[in-house]
Amino acid sequence: MKRTYIVEALKGNGIDREILVKGWVRTRRDSKGGFSFIELNDGSCFNNLQIIVDAELDNYQNEVIKLFPGSSIAVTGILVKSQGGGQSVEVKANKVKVYGFCNPDEYTVGKQRVSFERLREIAHIRVRTNTFGAVTRVRNKLAKATHDFFQERGFYYINTPIITASDCEGAGEMFRVTTLDHSAIPKIEDNVDYSQDFFGKESFLTVSGQLSVECFACGLSNAYTFGPTFRAENSNTSRHLSEFWMIEPEMAFADLSDDADLAEEYLKYLITTVLEECLEDMEFFNKRIDKTILQTLTHVNESEFVRLSYTEAIDILSKSGQKFEYETNWGNDLQTEHERFLTEKEFKKPIIVTDYPRDIKAFYMKQNDDDKTVAAMDVLVPKIGEIIGGSQREDDLHKLDSRIKEQGMDLAPYWWYRDLRKFGSVPHAGFGLGFERLVQFVTGMDNIRDVIPFPRTPKSAEF
Amino acid sequence: MKRTYIVEALKGNGIDREILVKGWVRTRRDSKGGFSFIELNDGSCFNNLQIIVDAELDNYQNEVIKLFPGSSIAVTGILVKSQGGGQSVEVKANKVKVYGFCNPDEYTVGKQRVSFERLREIAHIRVRTNTFGAVTRVRNKLAKATHDFFQERGFYYINTPIITASDCEGAGEMFRVTTLDHSAIPKIEDNVDYSQDFFGKESFLTVSGQLSVECFACGLSNAYTFGPTFRAENSNTSRHLSEFWMIEPEMAFADLSDDADLAEEYLKYLITTVLEECLEDMEFFNKRIDKTILQTLTHVNESEFVRLSYTEAIDILSKSGQKFEYETNWGNDLQTEHERFLTEKEFKKPIIVTDYPRDIKAFYMKQNDDDKTVAAMDVLVPKIGEIIGGSQREDDLHKLDSRIKEQGMDLAPYWWYRDLRKFGSVPHAGFGLGFERLVQFVTGMDNIRDVIPFPRTPKSAEF
Repeated sequence: MKRTYIVEALKGNGIDREILVKGWVRTRRDSKGGFSFIELNDGSCFNNLQIIVDAELDNYQNEVIKLFPGSSIAVTGILVKSQGGGQSVEVKANKVKVYGFCNPDEYTVGKQRVSFERLREIAHIRVRTNTFGAVTRVRNKLAKATHDFFQERGFYYINTPIITASDCEGAGEMFRVTTLDHSAIPKIEDNVDYSQDFFGKESFLTVSGQLSVECFACGLSNAYTFGPTFRAENSNTSRHLSEFWMIEPEMAFADLSDDADLAEEYLKYLITTVLEECLEDMEFFNKRIDKTILQTLTHVNESEFVRLSYTEAIDILSKSGQKFEYETNWGNDLQTEHERFLTEKEFKKPIIVTDYPRDIKAFYMKQNDDDKTVAAMDVLVPKIGEIIGGSQREDDLHKLDSRIKEQGMDLAPYWWYRDLRKFGSVPHAGFGLGFERLVQFVTGMDNIRDVIPFPRTPKSAEF
Repeated sequence: MKRTYIVEALKGNGIDREILVKGWVRTRRDSKGGFSFIELNDGSCFNNLQIIVDAELDNYQNEVIKLFPGSSIAVTGILVKSQGGGQSVEVKANKVKVYGFCNPDEYTVGKQRVSFERLREIAHIRVRTNTFGAVTRVRNKLAKATHDFFQERGFYYINTPIITASDCEGAGEMFRVTTLDHSAIPKIEDNVDYSQDFFGKESFLTVSGQLSVECFACGLSNAYTFGPTFRAENSNTSRHLSEFWMIEPEMAFADLSDDADLAEEYLKYLITTVLEECLEDMEFFNKRIDKTILQTLTHVNESEFVRLSYTEAIDILSKSGQKFEYETNWGNDLQTEHERFLTEKEFKKPIIVTDYPRDIKAFYMKQNDDDKTVAAMDVLVPKIGEIIGGSQREDDLHKLDSRIKEQGMDLAPYWWYRDLRKFGSVPHAGFGLGFERLVQFVTGMDNIRDVIPFPRTPKSAEF
């Protein structure tokens, strides 16, 4: 018999017929009437399927009553309308086949109320809990929706390199990738001889695919990355990972306004998809993780994002009368307290701040005519703050070169990036979104280590 | 005016109306009648759109006649049925706006017949050629079809870790990831002190996400990875990359036969999608890269894959009368020459060879009752040989432990992998497919360095 997934059974598909379901026991309890009630979960949806097992079954005493949480079984039985409350259908078992038992003394996940900290130590089985099952389904849906969104709009998915020997990235601390023998590092005089390393020179893990994906946008019009990126920063916070996934779309023939349009449309597409297709999971988050999450997401979805310049934002902050820890002088970067004031108190919805001072932004951002600002944007959402950062890119070779030099960098390693401005240069723009920050935003989960399968952080790369 | 993509214009969308197109000049030639013919490409499809520019246009002498290949322009004009042969529609330009010129002396890509070797040195702009535009579109489509295929079947996309400090993987040479200062490696007596490294111990780049994704299948039923993997092998061949992408699905409550079904269905789904949705690109490959590629793919798609055991395969090879370089004794691994004989001469279609000798296969594969073989499978296709490798996994803790010990490995680092066999163990199976090998198979491209944006190989990590 073909297996029926629980998500289908709960919809009543197969009602009054015999079906075969398989999964892991979440709970089992005896009734006075000589039955066992099993709550079975197979991961296909949040909810469990109730199985009623009659004590008359052959293996009832030998096996069924030993089915503690975590045990794996197959059940053949009739799918019927449920007599009891709490569920619409249930299965009256004709046969229970046990694949694997589970010792309740060893199985932490079967216990009530295990802390997220403890679950991180058993990340290999935490997906069997309500919370991490839901996180995984929502994360999966956000990834799928990301591909759908960009593909529907003609963007090509580009796998930009993970290992980079290019000096171009320079954003933050990088991990070195090497095959040199650490007990016998080759040297030429006092310097490490990287010509003997695997790639013939120093190489690192990427911090961004942006410069690479620009090459593809400047030839195919629209491209995006969705891959892992790395920061070797010693940040032990609930918002930092050493390894995280990033989405970076890039559009040719586009300016900052097109970029902001794309970012707003993308965020709303993601929220709409999750609210429509993961509603059970989202209701769980709303009940147990963050009681305002559905309201927040619905509000974001219904809002037209406010667009204002950095200069306007500074003006609002300065005149607000609000006391801030950091000063709101023109030229300073916006701090989280400023961002939260703007999104949560001033506008009470998402905002897109544009045209930041050039001195606090990266070399590749397009210089505005005022000679003071660049065509950068940050998308800020209530509670999270910055969720997307992007810019129009400098497409004028001379201006790009002067920015590179101004920041004390060599032109030489940028030869290929500069070529894009020599050979049919086009206005182009893009942004980056940290995927785990997005999952945090959508689920309300507090710690970023709880929205990725196996988190990597300073001093921790378990599993 | 809203931009029309060339893929839409060529379908005649907007016929007899004014449209706006943007892209890069592929060629421009003068006609005797005082016109320029521009072939414009924007990456949205393989074919170019022909633009007819009248010499009467204001900027004709100053700009239009200087439009060498690679220049970027926007054209406003009427989309009309073409008078000439070779295309169905063309644009009569009312206005040509130049974004960026392109110096023909410096722009290698604009030349006829540039070698693939040379194009690898300018990989940042090779996507502007017919071949690499087509490779990128087909690669993109295969990635999208991969997500669609698994999502439609209820598989969750899992981002397994890239950096691993686990000793479990052990398949081939690994790259080390470190933040230690190479000019002052910390030591305790004669040993490197990895407790001072970023993760507090030795860490590496992953060679496979399989063991991690098994954790998710054993809780959610079906899961898959699609991410980068790494091999620090000094292999300079047309089939090896140091960094490549891999797809690894994993199913709970599944055996080797289910695994083979999934692999066959997946390959056919990919081929069908590409033949339906990238036909122009595929026709180009058939004409210029491999004149049998369409025939091969169609044949694979229409064939029922032959399934036979390794023992049967050895028997056929031994009795074939064919001379092989490597002996066909039971217990030896199949070599490429054997695989090609079976797929190209004996069966003339894809085959799935199962149940290999346990001594030549990995520890995690399920032992068969004969005590000699394991439930492994290789999917072999004509011309390429092995394209997919998979197995049912050992779900019996005692058998798994004895295999780990047999291979001289410690049990301790496998504590979490072994837990899956303690807590509700289930039969489960999965496979791995190297994404670049797949792109090679589908496009007929000879060198694997030409089917990934920026290839990483020994002594080479440019861009």
